Amino acid sequence: MKRIKAAIVGASGYTGFELLRILAAHPNVEVVCATSRKEAGEKLSDMYPALKAAYGDMTFCEPKFELLKKADVAFTALPHTAGAQIGGELIDAGVKLIDLSADFRYDSLALYEKTYGVKHPRPDLLSEAVYGLCELNRKQIAAARLVGNPGCYTTAAILALYPLVKENLIDRGCVIIDGKSGVTGAGRKSDVDYSFCETDDNFRAYSAVGHRHTTEMEEKLGISLSFTPHLLPVRRGILETIYARAATEDFSAIEKAYEKYYGGEQFVSFSSRLPDIKLVRGSNCCRIGAAIDNKYGLVKVVSVIDNLIKGASGQAVQNMNIMFGFDEGTALTALGEHL
Amino acid sequence: MKRIKAAIVGASGYTGFELLRILAAHPNVEVVCATSRKEAGEKLSDMYPALKAAYGDMTFCEPKFELLKKADVAFTALPHTAGAQIGGELIDAGVKLIDLSADFRYDSLALYEKTYGVKHPRPDLLSEAVYGLCELNRKQIAAARLVGNPGCYTTAAILALYPLVKENLIDRGCVIIDGKSGVTGAGRKSDVDYSFCETDDNFRAYSAVGHRHTTEMEEKLGISLSFTPHLLPVRRGILETIYARAATEDFSAIEKAYEKYYGGEQFVSFSSRLPDIKLVRGSNCCRIGAAIDNKYGLVKVVSVIDNLIKGASGQAVQNMNIMFGFDEGTALTALGEHL
Amino acid sequence: MKRIKAAIVGASGYTGFELLRILAAHPNVEVVCATSRKEAGEKLSDMYPALKAAYGDMTFCEPKFELLKKADVAFTALPHTAGAQIGGELIDAGVKLIDLSADFRYDSLALYEKTYGVKHPRPDLLSEAVYGLCELNRKQIAAARLVGNPGCYTTAAILALYPLVKENLIDRGCVIIDGKSGVTGAGRKSDVDYSFCETDDNFRAYSAVGHRHTTEMEEKLGISLSFTPHLLPVRRGILETIYARAATEDFSAIEKAYEKYYGGEQFVSFSSRLPDIKLVRGSNCCRIGAAIDNKYGLVKVVSVIDNLIKGASGQAVQNMNIMFGFDEGTALTALGEHL
Amino acid sequence: MKRIKAAIVGASGYTGFELLRILAAHPNVEVVCATSRKEAGEKLSDMYPALKAAYGDMTFCEPKFELLKKADVAFTALPHTAGAQIGGELIDAGVKLIDLSADFRYDSLALYEKTYGVKHPRPDLLSEAVYGLCELNRKQIAAARLVGNPGCYTTAAILALYPLVKENLIDRGCVIIDGKSGVTGAGRKSDVDYSFCETDDNFRAYSAVGHRHTTEMEEKLGISLSFTPHLLPVRRGILETIYARAATEDFSAIEKAYEKYYGGEQFVSFSSRLPDIKLVRGSNCCRIGAAIDNKYGLVKVVSVIDNLIKGASGQAVQNMNIMFGFDEGTALTALGEHL
Repeated sequence: MKRIKAAIVGASGYTGFELLRILAAHPNVEVVCATSRKEAGEKLSDMYPALKAAYGDMTFCEPKFELLKKADVAFTALPHTAGAQIGGELIDAGVKLIDLSADFRYDSLALYEKTYGVKHPRPDLLSEAVYGLCELNRKQIAAARLVGNPGCYTTAAILALYPLVKENLIDRGCVIIDGKSGVTGAGRKSDVDYSFCETDDNFRAYSAVGHRHTTEMEEKLGISLSFTPHLLPVRRGILETIYARAATEDFSAIEKAYEKYYGGEQFVSFSSRLPDIKLVRGSNCCRIGAAIDNKYGLVKVVSVIDNLIKGASGQAVQNMNIMFGFDEGTALTALGEHL
Repeated sequence: MKRIKAAIVGASGYTGFELLRILAAHPNVEVVCATSRKEAGEKLSDMYPALKAAYGDMTFCEPKFELLKKADVAFTALPHTAGAQIGGELIDAGVKLIDLSADFRYDSLALYEKTYGVKHPRPDLLSEAVYGLCELNRKQIAAARLVGNPGCYTTAAILALYPLVKENLIDRGCVIIDGKSGVTGAGRKSDVDYSFCETDDNFRAYSAVGHRHTTEMEEKLGISLSFTPHLLPVRRGILETIYARAATEDFSAIEKAYEKYYGGEQFVSFSSRLPDIKLVRGSNCCRIGAAIDNKYGLVKVVSVIDNLIKGASGQAVQNMNIMFGFDEGTALTALGEHL
Repeated sequence: MKRIKAAIVGASGYTGFELLRILAAHPNVEVVCATSRKEAGEKLSDMYPALKAAYGDMTFCEPKFELLKKADVAFTALPHTAGAQIGGELIDAGVKLIDLSADFRYDSLALYEKTYGVKHPRPDLLSEAVYGLCELNRKQIAAARLVGNPGCYTTAAILALYPLVKENLIDRGCVIIDGKSGVTGAGRKSDVDYSFCETDDNFRAYSAVGHRHTTEMEEKLGISLSFTPHLLPVRRGILETIYARAATEDFSAIEKAYEKYYGGEQFVSFSSRLPDIKLVRGSNCCRIGAAIDNKYGLVKVVSVIDNLIKGASGQAVQNMNIMFGFDEGTALTALGEHL
Repeated sequence: MKRIKAAIVGASGYTGFELLRILAAHPNVEVVCATSRKEAGEKLSDMYPALKAAYGDMTFCEPKFELLKKADVAFTALPHTAGAQIGGELIDAGVKLIDLSADFRYDSLALYEKTYGVKHPRPDLLSEAVYGLCELNRKQIAAARLVGNPGCYTTAAILALYPLVKENLIDRGCVIIDGKSGVTGAGRKSDVDYSFCETDDNFRAYSAVGHRHTTEMEEKLGISLSFTPHLLPVRRGILETIYARAATEDFSAIEKAYEKYYGGEQFVSFSSRLPDIKLVRGSNCCRIGAAIDNKYGLVKVVSVIDNLIKGASGQAVQNMNIMFGFDEGTALTALGEHL
């Protein structure tokens, strides 16, 4: 059996943890290093005792290039610009890269730089970077050495809207996305705003105008839209309610569109029954439901993912499986936890 | 000090409980009976031990007309049609009525009957019934003997939209309301769908097309809109995110509109800081915030209430205070719990 | 690869669901029927949409003997006495049985009948039934055709106390177990007491005297103890805090005892760091920690499991793996979810 | 009506917030300053928007002595030693003091200094400080100028055990307290360990040996005991399960003891029905229940409080009411929220 070496750069956060969890069960992958500047020298299991069963006394290490370049693939789970900097060096050294920051998601350098308010450290790599939405870009991913892993809100939105846009079933100029995310979406944070006391039994909107995932959605879908995120008192999971002017009154046209694009997929599917978060929690799935409000001429689409899995680390592993020719679902599950 | 006798008809559910809690602290009101067909003979404190401090060994009683007609005011917290039946008899007997069902909310008999799929038991009373949204109909409420207490989602939506509609700051034909409610909104239920295991750490949309509160909102606002409710894993609280085409790019016009309508109100206010649920939980307040997305020509309004208080029992008591000439805020608070 | 056929009798509850989830990933098992009297004819995925990915349109079926007897192994997830009735017939027909009720847990018929207040339907089978606490009875389980799967509270308590009792490190006459369980421990219930509104943000003791798991713990440990269960506002997980008079002041003696019994185990381990629930949620593990309060002469032991997995369905699958000679950890994981 | 001026020193934490909330509804009290070194100059309502309705644009201020000494009463909600330092100066200046730290709770200077590992800044004041457990020390509180407000775990434990100890109904040498607290007990913290993601759906023991409240309980009750705290995934509320060797088999003796001590109290009561947290959340009550396990010779007592109210700020206000001759229950409620 083919075995590869994987490095996780920025492994102490929640997406790093989830990568470690998923890869622990992957028969073709050996995690050779898990870096964390802040936690270097500490055992993985001191921070995440659940990892002890798989990683024993392995420690977080400094992100040393000499070490990292020995890997076959690196996952960079770092803030934007940091991902491109260290990731760029690794690409240059022949390591395949799956970057979980926003650095390699955009086609347009200008749109990236405007959205994030920074200069891109490695604009030379943008043209070869593949947007890692597996179900839509499978072929390019298979051939890529550099994948920009999509954002969490973005994954749920694009998978939900892509068939409707492509089949001209909605008006492109009037799309509203009301997004709700679990708290792990904010990462592992020492911040009163994400403390249990301020978050439990509460609910709020944030970034009501100009959330960064908006431009990522717009570029990939080729439409203009308005996106408003909210913070749910749940740990994992995103549910987006999407409102678009219907170009049809025929619900079966919508069903057919989803069947056309996702009929053969194991991790993405459509059902007329609206999905809830527990359907996908713990899984690598995106589940989509819809209804037409004919009185009002509106399509309402509901899309759910586990933000840490299909919205981050699971999709990253799915991308790796495609890039290295492993069975695409290896170490991933389509079964939600429900409970 | 003026003292009145109040009857609560249908007191064993959550709105009944909350009425009992609020009225326990009301210096002008004596609760003379709390009816429940199902729980008749049981102590209030067996079902709700927290009530013992205020109601001792008082029991739920059968809803006998001879008993109820001695009250000065009756609160009917019953399913639709039941509220109008028993409430109608009480009105005929000279008891003032605050009905928490949908029976006396509509101006249009036809709209009520179509929305709820039933014949109205007392259509003769519709014309004199006053819609009990206190801040908008204060004068009529003061003179009324029959008040239809507004729905919970409806209260949050109308208070948020009324100033914008009246001042022509939004396009009337393109309003989308994404509503999220705590689980008490579904009442006290033996239903697996509302069990802790199915609801905690979960989130879902429901009644994606045709939720009944839609027509109530439309009639009161004189606009057409699309409403989608969702179930939050919180006990109390509603947050609505409202999307409307802006007829202005000037945020200060919006601030002025809210100031004009609610500037002197103790329980309703506007702030440019978007409100969250904990701001109002435990209070009789509706707090409203807004932002303009000028790139997209959209006003986004966020409105929050405690569904059991301003969305039901608190507003009912506020209506009673107005009807009987008590200080409007008696037994109610504007202070949210935060924690 | 060896493949066996499994039947799940009483598959619509939470332990049934969890069995279905675990077995979906088991390479050696085909689930040939999932029975439910109440839900017969309904699709598994209508009740648990998460199962669709694994079971497609499979339906719950009536528990017909002709069908069940074709299985190699049956899991009975039924109320007590029902497990023994149908399970007894299956044993007679040559089907291996793992019963998740209390029917085959006790050595003493009298103690079972007193504890549960019923007559045992198949006392003839008690003597051959093996108590399915895998780590303690592995050899007997391997040879058994009938296993009584332990209770959830019981599993956490026995695994925590067994080494201390066997090594005489605690006083047998003074053991107090303060147990706290997640709500799935009560099963899938339409009951206001387990509704979200009554359970969330709440905590309570129940069955303060005489909870049935007490006698099961006492029989297996050969000691007398007092057990008090509590209901946590979490879905999954049990944490027990156990207080015993210390027969030693030497903590290392305690560490050595756990090392002796569990040093080679993949699913049970001891650490001086006290475990929390998230360490084991989603896994088949029991994690144990302890401290000595020398001032007071007390050992405090903390033991955690996922009540649906090591406390029910996971241990049942572990038992099956042992009975059929599969690798003991097949389809089970030692990695907790943490998030 | 008599009106007094109150200062809150250390007002930005959760007990400070709760004092502000309670005093907002107190007809005899004007809050003249709310200090916070860290938040000085910031509006109360920027940190706690819910306070705007009562405090408008009032800001946190520096704890200047010139300002504070004008108050009639000061509440110090500060870490230990800080409470005694600033509080001591205020006492010297003639301001009555209610200190919410541990500084004035102990009779024994040595026990305080050993427990907290510090030198007491004002040992001269210890002898006149009254332990502010209102129901037990009412007379001394009425005459005091300095009150040490009890700890949260301590309040629930002492109120539960006092009648049993005084009436010799339990063995003094064998008391075990298993305490469970909501997360507000840890204060307003930027700490990953109290973040939503690490705390929700989780449960853990902490300070398994030597929690500081142990010595406070022991000194006040005159017994020796072992206390183990746990962290519940709830915001407010403490439930303690207390195990003691019974000196009686007669449950009515226990009922009589509680009746004797608390029969006339509005905020403390006993019932044979075990209390849960929602019974007291939002109220100033301590509710106690008990059962005898005669097989095992054990009394099990369950005691619940809202840790922020009876366990901190509510009891502080109750103490103030007693000290200034106001009705003892002013601004406090005995009604729990239930929902």
